[in-house]
Amino acid sequence: MITSPDNAQLKQIRKLQRKKERTATGLFAAEGEDLVMAAAAAGWQPEMLLRADVDVEPHLLERVSALGSGARVIGVYRQRWSEPRGDVCLFLHGVADPGNIGTIVRAAHAFCDGPVILGPRCADPWSPKAVRASMGSIFSRPPATAEVEELPGFKLALDAGAPLTLAQAAGGARAPVVLCLGGERLGLPEELVREADAAARIPLREGGPDSLNVAMAATVALYELRRGMACDA
Amino acid sequence: MITSPDNAQLKQIRKLQRKKERTATGLFAAEGEDLVMAAAAAGWQPEMLLRADVDVEPHLLERVSALGSGARVIGVYRQRWSEPRGDVCLFLHGVADPGNIGTIVRAAHAFCDGPVILGPRCADPWSPKAVRASMGSIFSRPPATAEVEELPGFKLALDAGAPLTLAQAAGGARAPVVLCLGGERLGLPEELVREADAAARIPLREGGPDSLNVAMAATVALYELRRGMACDA
Repeated sequence: MITSPDNAQLKQIRKLQRKKERTATGLFAAEGEDLVMAAAAAGWQPEMLLRADVDVEPHLLERVSALGSGARVIGVYRQRWSEPRGDVCLFLHGVADPGNIGTIVRAAHAFCDGPVILGPRCADPWSPKAVRASMGSIFSRPPATAEVEELPGFKLALDAGAPLTLAQAAGGARAPVVLCLGGERLGLPEELVREADAAARIPLREGGPDSLNVAMAATVALYELRRGMACDA
Repeated sequence: MITSPDNAQLKQIRKLQRKKERTATGLFAAEGEDLVMAAAAAGWQPEMLLRADVDVEPHLLERVSALGSGARVIGVYRQRWSEPRGDVCLFLHGVADPGNIGTIVRAAHAFCDGPVILGPRCADPWSPKAVRASMGSIFSRPPATAEVEELPGFKLALDAGAPLTLAQAAGGARAPVVLCLGGERLGLPEELVREADAAARIPLREGGPDSLNVAMAATVALYELRRGMACDA
């Protein structure tokens, strides 16, 4: 049982709160029983697993928690990346909030067969907030990285100013589809929208907000694509 | 210019981080220029407005921030509640995460004309996290409180085990519609689902997560209702 805050394993977990350490080691931490169970269910072996009262004193585990959630277990895992593929996948540009990245990973796991592909200026998907927001989906559906030019398929850019609605554009899409979304403030680069095979907007009420949170927009778009392309919606 | 941390206005803002104080005073705080601008645009007069470098020393304002975001302005406002009404509104049961409440308020503002109605065991919509997650929509679309039995209209309960899909159920809905959603872990009470006019599920991939985050589910359901009932989708 670990009883010292100077223990090397505890120090390693705390260091993994920093992106630099995660990138250097290729490791990340998942906090809490739900995430550790999700990892096990998806066949991920932890590099290290510390359980409160079994492997480590509870207050010491709490002190290295990134989320301050009083986690009773923390697992350390080796990062895995997917290849960009699938009938429907998602390309993100400039999505800088790790909670949004995690939520979108979960939405992709729920609605499409391809991964979330991280383009320029996206948050680290292995950060504690992103891993937690994925609710474990990051273990079933690890993200990919790519430039948008490298991706084959029908590129559908979500853009608030597009003349076509999402439902109209989704009806004309044939697999493989790459759904492209930009970060909340800046959206997608103009060039990407111009060179996409189609651009579409999510119709919003007049007088309401100009845009949805990027995770909400991604979820709605994946839902609509699945509705338009599949037969069970 | 406020230069003392013991200033009464600063103390009041800090106290408003606690639900008890918000309930007792009927006030709440909004942090940051975007939210204060949204309040002004929606015609809300602040009870108090503190600007860094103008009304207060910046480091003192930062110290009373609930969100640790280094806000340059904090406004204090009087809570307002809506009446439950509209062609489409949302009823929430047991949604305990304030970030989800705020996100759903924003989604309602984007997609429907009625408010978010808070039923039993929901988080305080005036908490700093909820107000921030609403991105200002809480000023345009203040929430309501009610018991589900009090609400007139067609009740559509979102339930992962329902035989109908959302698209099927939304097609048969006529205004006014009350979309009912339960908290993430427990969902809606069985009795509410049984007594609703229709129950529907959002179709998810096999092998994916069993459910969506409640804010994602609400957004998809509002989108689908708008799509089914309006003509611009």
